[in-house]
Amino acid sequence: MIQSVAFIGLGAMGYRMAAHLTKHFSTVLVWNRNFEKAEKHAAEYGTQAVTLNEAVQADIIFSCLPTSQDVELLMTELELKPGSVWVDCTSGVPASAKTLAAQLKLKNVDFLDAPVSGQTVGAENGTLTVMVGGDAAAFDKALPAMQTFGKLIKYVGESGAGFAVKAVNNMLMAVNLCSVAEGFTTLKAHGVNLNEALDCINASSGKSMVTETVLPQRILNRSFPLTFALPLLAKDTGIALDLIRDAKLSAPVIALTQSLIQAASDLSEKDSDFSTAVKMYESWSKITIE
Amino acid sequence: MIQSVAFIGLGAMGYRMAAHLTKHFSTVLVWNRNFEKAEKHAAEYGTQAVTLNEAVQADIIFSCLPTSQDVELLMTELELKPGSVWVDCTSGVPASAKTLAAQLKLKNVDFLDAPVSGQTVGAENGTLTVMVGGDAAAFDKALPAMQTFGKLIKYVGESGAGFAVKAVNNMLMAVNLCSVAEGFTTLKAHGVNLNEALDCINASSGKSMVTETVLPQRILNRSFPLTFALPLLAKDTGIALDLIRDAKLSAPVIALTQSLIQAASDLSEKDSDFSTAVKMYESWSKITIE
Amino acid sequence: MIQSVAFIGLGAMGYRMAAHLTKHFSTVLVWNRNFEKAEKHAAEYGTQAVTLNEAVQADIIFSCLPTSQDVELLMTELELKPGSVWVDCTSGVPASAKTLAAQLKLKNVDFLDAPVSGQTVGAENGTLTVMVGGDAAAFDKALPAMQTFGKLIKYVGESGAGFAVKAVNNMLMAVNLCSVAEGFTTLKAHGVNLNEALDCINASSGKSMVTETVLPQRILNRSFPLTFALPLLAKDTGIALDLIRDAKLSAPVIALTQSLIQAASDLSEKDSDFSTAVKMYESWSKITIE
Amino acid sequence: MIQSVAFIGLGAMGYRMAAHLTKHFSTVLVWNRNFEKAEKHAAEYGTQAVTLNEAVQADIIFSCLPTSQDVELLMTELELKPGSVWVDCTSGVPASAKTLAAQLKLKNVDFLDAPVSGQTVGAENGTLTVMVGGDAAAFDKALPAMQTFGKLIKYVGESGAGFAVKAVNNMLMAVNLCSVAEGFTTLKAHGVNLNEALDCINASSGKSMVTETVLPQRILNRSFPLTFALPLLAKDTGIALDLIRDAKLSAPVIALTQSLIQAASDLSEKDSDFSTAVKMYESWSKITIE
Repeated sequence: MIQSVAFIGLGAMGYRMAAHLTKHFSTVLVWNRNFEKAEKHAAEYGTQAVTLNEAVQADIIFSCLPTSQDVELLMTELELKPGSVWVDCTSGVPASAKTLAAQLKLKNVDFLDAPVSGQTVGAENGTLTVMVGGDAAAFDKALPAMQTFGKLIKYVGESGAGFAVKAVNNMLMAVNLCSVAEGFTTLKAHGVNLNEALDCINASSGKSMVTETVLPQRILNRSFPLTFALPLLAKDTGIALDLIRDAKLSAPVIALTQSLIQAASDLSEKDSDFSTAVKMYESWSKITIE
Repeated sequence: MIQSVAFIGLGAMGYRMAAHLTKHFSTVLVWNRNFEKAEKHAAEYGTQAVTLNEAVQADIIFSCLPTSQDVELLMTELELKPGSVWVDCTSGVPASAKTLAAQLKLKNVDFLDAPVSGQTVGAENGTLTVMVGGDAAAFDKALPAMQTFGKLIKYVGESGAGFAVKAVNNMLMAVNLCSVAEGFTTLKAHGVNLNEALDCINASSGKSMVTETVLPQRILNRSFPLTFALPLLAKDTGIALDLIRDAKLSAPVIALTQSLIQAASDLSEKDSDFSTAVKMYESWSKITIE
Repeated sequence: MIQSVAFIGLGAMGYRMAAHLTKHFSTVLVWNRNFEKAEKHAAEYGTQAVTLNEAVQADIIFSCLPTSQDVELLMTELELKPGSVWVDCTSGVPASAKTLAAQLKLKNVDFLDAPVSGQTVGAENGTLTVMVGGDAAAFDKALPAMQTFGKLIKYVGESGAGFAVKAVNNMLMAVNLCSVAEGFTTLKAHGVNLNEALDCINASSGKSMVTETVLPQRILNRSFPLTFALPLLAKDTGIALDLIRDAKLSAPVIALTQSLIQAASDLSEKDSDFSTAVKMYESWSKITIE
Repeated sequence: MIQSVAFIGLGAMGYRMAAHLTKHFSTVLVWNRNFEKAEKHAAEYGTQAVTLNEAVQADIIFSCLPTSQDVELLMTELELKPGSVWVDCTSGVPASAKTLAAQLKLKNVDFLDAPVSGQTVGAENGTLTVMVGGDAAAFDKALPAMQTFGKLIKYVGESGAGFAVKAVNNMLMAVNLCSVAEGFTTLKAHGVNLNEALDCINASSGKSMVTETVLPQRILNRSFPLTFALPLLAKDTGIALDLIRDAKLSAPVIALTQSLIQAASDLSEKDSDFSTAVKMYESWSKITIE
């Protein structure tokens, strides 16, 4: 029976995810490096802004930070409570999940890698997808807490499996981002009406989340709203490539796409949305996808 | 006002498409190289099986053949009727469409490149997507006939534009086919539950038509039903690459994918479904995507 | 017995190649679109600057123009002499060679595709490599004339074979250019001394013409002297890719490299040497290869 | 002043390398896991076959093993002598060199990563190239010993730099292997005489060690002699890709080539020479490069 939950890391995602916890749990502790944000969250949602060491005394501890390294660094400072479950919603590194899970196991704490998808709108509405790796019993224990902000919550395998699924998902999106940039540049070079072409493709086998939402809502209208930074996508594609290297597999399209997204990220201005990767292609062809 | 329509090429798609024409037109002529198939169609749907030269006397002439070359060869034999519109539903070559449109224009016949998507089930139900290039007035003229079998019918640009959109669409699908094979091989190598992973991805940004239908319905269940042959997909990816070369563009992901699909096609057995392209990856990794 | 030879196209290569002809032939006709250059050549080397129609009355006619299209355009204007041999030293298109050879055959003129390598220094010293496609008897006939400027002169096959070898050669060079840029950027990022590393590689299996000459003489010293323009290399890589498409082959490394060189060319300033392709990589990594 | 030297790992390379040490040093200790080989070496060259712990009491200790992991495992068992220098000629992992160098430094032992190139013939003749990373003073100390088997011996940077240069060198060779397979398949498909084409390319800018030796001596004559196993090349390309990932660089041609060599290795039979990588291409095109 979960008595208390905590949420560590109140960024664009975490701030909204933590808000749902109060609907189901009376004790919701929050902590953020910039502590004013935690206090704001407490005032707004009735959570309790506490110190990090207090937060990790909860039965279920959520974390949502930029990278696995951030989680590792933060964890070294802490005294955890035996019997608790740490649910890390960071888009992290599978190898790091395995290490942390093994370390926490020694202290009788379970570590679940539980990255989410659905962006800020999904966090707002509590409709996120959560892909979870780790101990199956710990998954069952943490499930009620994850259900407050998640709609589709899946146990995908042992420690690292959740992070692996997220990395591959984002990689597939990156591949679509590149190939759609290439394909639509080509169509425009040949005088094709891009909006009509897009309608056709979205009713055909070439359809993807990129053609359905990213292309019309971010690229064709030239808005490129920052919701997911390009360097973070570059990081995620790197995680996917590392999974391939670890398993000594051959994955030419993914390997190439990782290089392209890395290059696009290196060329991009600070705080660029992932969708601006298409601008690298536009600089080559002098064709604007609009 | 359309008095008569004809349909040339009663393959898996054409046979079903032509069947819809009788609902709206009293005179529907059909022709097929294997003429028994035309006679069967006439008996089944009340169309008229006629000679090729009789067929092309219709106001609107549809064709649906394996390649643009087939259409070109067939057309050299024919005496066309001034004022008619030829609507070619082949997945063809844009440059060929331009040439044919220019040649037919001299005889006062319009040529529309109007490839379709939606597979045999869409042809059966009259819910195909039709992407049309050519003269805009000819498009308007042929629209009522296309509406009998099409649900989304779009004018995408001048001659060749329809073929270009189809080639790019199929190319995007091919990219997804390769990257999904790579990504799911990787997940399996890391012990991830593929079915749960797929559910997560289909609710996330990595989603595509390939993850939604091809992977669960053809690959994971190892059925690989032949509905679209791998060599035809290789042909279509080649058309897309030629469009890129014509425009002197840089499209690394598409160029690489064309090579991979070509290799997979070269390695495949006769009459293999396009989805069997994943078997090339499986032969590398010794991992079966199931 | 060759009585007269002509040279059409006195660019950086042609000007020097034509100069060698006077050593072995008494009648050497020259023509250039900018005719002053032809007159300068005549004054300098004792050749005769004549009209284009006079030039093509020679027994052996050499041409050396930027592209096959230039040769085709020029040839349409001309009345050729039966029994002569046209030796085209352009880095041209194999399909064009086949067409021109067939057309000229009707007029009893042989067409050899005979591109050269060795750069301006080889043209100066008469030590070029000449790779020749076309009729074998015509090759024998033209050989003495080619020997004036060539050191290694090879009959490599039927019409188009010479152009094909040149395109593949330049493609292999382009692949090395890209991979060397990638490899040396990587070494520098890891603090390796590039000059010492280069010495090692030039004594090892990674050695290529690019590591032996292009890297030390053009890139590491940041000189990038213009001797072969990047857009021409992009053109040549395109010819190689078209050969692959024509034969329906799978060539992933070449296909990718074509895209990269195309992108680098699109990004480059006018009149950039081919070696400046590395600057695209440098713009990605912010690492200068020096 | 070096009093004694040792050589650990008497494989095809090490056996020959160790033989040169007796010319300049009176005390040469050798060890091999299969100890009969060490005894054979002692009998043949006047070295002393000793236990591993005796061997590592030498002033300079050479090792030459299949992988860095082998070196790490072996080293855990040992008590080293302060003041000695360990020179590892394995084609190893840069990160491992950094770790080992730091660990040995604590025991006042220097570790140099000093991979070699030149194959067995170079080891036989004492004409190897040695690319060395690590402490510069230790390099000076070990130089006389390295000079017995090396011709070109270069200090390329800090720990790991030697391994990095070797990995990049082998990667460049792998890129050439793939692109040459692609290019020559293409030429053959177009009816070009491969031997004549090769002569032209070897006199032109497309030349590389692969076109000069690998293609004529191993592939065109279909001999594929096993001197360097394909899985080891796959390993080396992986090391190069890891260097790229570590530095967060974009290297599309290398990334793709790594995938292709990995696939070729996965498809190859046991004990296949690296040159058999071309057989993957031949299985695609049904064209034999001969």
